Amino acid sequence: MNNSGKPRETGTRTRVELGERGYDILIDSGSLDLFGQALKDVWNGKRLFVVTNETVGALYADRVSSSAVNAGYDTSLIHIPDGESFKNLDTVNLIYTALLEAGADRRIGIAALGGGVTGDIAGFAAATFMRGVPFIQIPTTLLAQVDSSVGGKTGVNHAMGKNLIGAFCQPELVFVDVRTLHTINPTQFQTGMYEVIKYGLIRDEPFFDYLVTNMDRIKNLDDRLLQETVRRCCEIKAEVVASDERESGIRRILNLGHTLGHALEAATFYKEISHGQAVGYGMIAAGYLSFFLGLIDETSLNRVVSGILSIGSLPSVEHVPAGQVIRACGMDKKKDGNKLIFVLLDQVGHTVIERFDHEDARILKAWQETLRVVGRNADA
Amino acid sequence: MNNSGKPRETGTRTRVELGERGYDILIDSGSLDLFGQALKDVWNGKRLFVVTNETVGALYADRVSSSAVNAGYDTSLIHIPDGESFKNLDTVNLIYTALLEAGADRRIGIAALGGGVTGDIAGFAAATFMRGVPFIQIPTTLLAQVDSSVGGKTGVNHAMGKNLIGAFCQPELVFVDVRTLHTINPTQFQTGMYEVIKYGLIRDEPFFDYLVTNMDRIKNLDDRLLQETVRRCCEIKAEVVASDERESGIRRILNLGHTLGHALEAATFYKEISHGQAVGYGMIAAGYLSFFLGLIDETSLNRVVSGILSIGSLPSVEHVPAGQVIRACGMDKKKDGNKLIFVLLDQVGHTVIERFDHEDARILKAWQETLRVVGRNADA
Repeated sequence: MNNSGKPRETGTRTRVELGERGYDILIDSGSLDLFGQALKDVWNGKRLFVVTNETVGALYADRVSSSAVNAGYDTSLIHIPDGESFKNLDTVNLIYTALLEAGADRRIGIAALGGGVTGDIAGFAAATFMRGVPFIQIPTTLLAQVDSSVGGKTGVNHAMGKNLIGAFCQPELVFVDVRTLHTINPTQFQTGMYEVIKYGLIRDEPFFDYLVTNMDRIKNLDDRLLQETVRRCCEIKAEVVASDERESGIRRILNLGHTLGHALEAATFYKEISHGQAVGYGMIAAGYLSFFLGLIDETSLNRVVSGILSIGSLPSVEHVPAGQVIRACGMDKKKDGNKLIFVLLDQVGHTVIERFDHEDARILKAWQETLRVVGRNADA
Repeated sequence: MNNSGKPRETGTRTRVELGERGYDILIDSGSLDLFGQALKDVWNGKRLFVVTNETVGALYADRVSSSAVNAGYDTSLIHIPDGESFKNLDTVNLIYTALLEAGADRRIGIAALGGGVTGDIAGFAAATFMRGVPFIQIPTTLLAQVDSSVGGKTGVNHAMGKNLIGAFCQPELVFVDVRTLHTINPTQFQTGMYEVIKYGLIRDEPFFDYLVTNMDRIKNLDDRLLQETVRRCCEIKAEVVASDERESGIRRILNLGHTLGHALEAATFYKEISHGQAVGYGMIAAGYLSFFLGLIDETSLNRVVSGILSIGSLPSVEHVPAGQVIRACGMDKKKDGNKLIFVLLDQVGHTVIERFDHEDARILKAWQETLRVVGRNADA
């Protein structure tokens, strides 16, 4: 761990090109103590509120705070409850109240220190406190580092569904220290890896191969490989987001595996399976669907499936009725009138968008094949 | 009233130039039945939700709905409770729930039919439902027509203060029928007129003179004069907003009268005096402050004061301790560190921004002079 506090630049810097809303993603290892200096380069505010939860806060809040204080920021912590079940307007209101009690005005900044849930909640608070204050992401889980912290989506759940309330809020800075991945649990890591491999599948065949080849070393948290992996994911996401900030077109390709993935999460009431694991299922199903449509050949299908399975074994969902999963498709925002939108592959590293009727038998068949191959892998 | 339903274009069109977020303000008289056609020109969605309250809805919802249906929109009404006390996250959540129960997706549009409170709440819901859906304003009070519906500010109150939660959300269209002003009460009209005269004071001396000269006919709701008045206000606001969308610079001039005005509202707990009346007080005080600083001479001061007083008599606030009002200054967003920001006049039609300490005796003196001249006018 680097405790010297001296500026250095061993990490990488990836720019998200969004004109005046553009920002940098800094990726390094053991760099948390350099956060304040890095922020100083992009934001000349005075007062910073760091939103975190007890779990992550206990590990990293001191280092982040000290570094912000050393850089001259008047720094306060706001703790929110830990867990997706608290991702709602009540928790956002808790942040508003803490800010107002501390006398915050519209010149403050809000930093999210934690995983995707913390980032989503704190980002929505930043987007809506006094009509928007500067926002900074310090993601500490793999999923947040490669996905949710980049792209500007923030929001909370409504009693009637996930992520239904939200706003686009581009951060001033995304500050990633991959060393924080040493403290997340294996399921959280696995969850992130499905999103990681997704970037290879949708946009970068050599990166897909790199991941499959180096999977063991990545899972063993080799810092150099983690840094490289997170960097490439952020680069791809930054490219996609920059060309489609508000998600009207190309950004949809990021939803590979998400149509059935979200449906599986909904059909299991978000209790049995993590988001990433559900996306893992969804991507395998998308592979079969692509194969059934003749978009990819059997060799490519096998590469896709075994690549995804190399991340680890997926929890069984054999007991969830397939009809229930398929009915849940398109209950979220991924539908176009009555048609279901699927992101499919026409080669490893390239996508096509296809629309299906709910009743299309190929969806059911792809799902059944997915359950079969996942089950066989679990037995192995 | 025009019930023919045939397209016509007797009104005026003012463009708010905000690049791809730009929009038109249509101002006409007796034109509510033409709303659907006008919307068709700018928004090709299918499903429209009209948010209104019982009072305004009873008067105008049928005409707006029919016109939207005739233009081909699948149209639903959402009723929210009437009044500033309901301008909070609970009411926004009520809108989310109504939308979700109706199966709304992110391709819907939301129209606000009513005064500023309805626009602020519905606009915030539109800005945050599924990360933002198209928004349309149909303002039915003078204040909403000349002020709150233009500029993109939306939001709700927090238990700790007004308008502390919000987002910028530029509408697709602002549709004004000045005939709706025939059904608002005199206090609502008076409240709007203070904001109207503000536009003359900050940016357009001939318009200020036009208003003072024609005050009686405007108060008698002469449709042609109302249309011209609303048009010029929107034009000025559009210019100011276009040059400063996020309120970092010139947009501040719109806050003439608002530093002490907001303070007076806060000191009377938003119960005794309307926003516009408070701004009336605040503008007179700003006039005196400008005079004390030598920015304007006594002749100009008298023009300012008598122009504002020509709108009507203001409710007495003699019983509110002056110290309480001054302490409340800067509790909202209008402060810069510890300094109070005042928009002052260096001529009728032109502003300067000045910063003051809370303790500056000239603020108290300006307030006392204001109370004196308002009291004398009430006696007259």
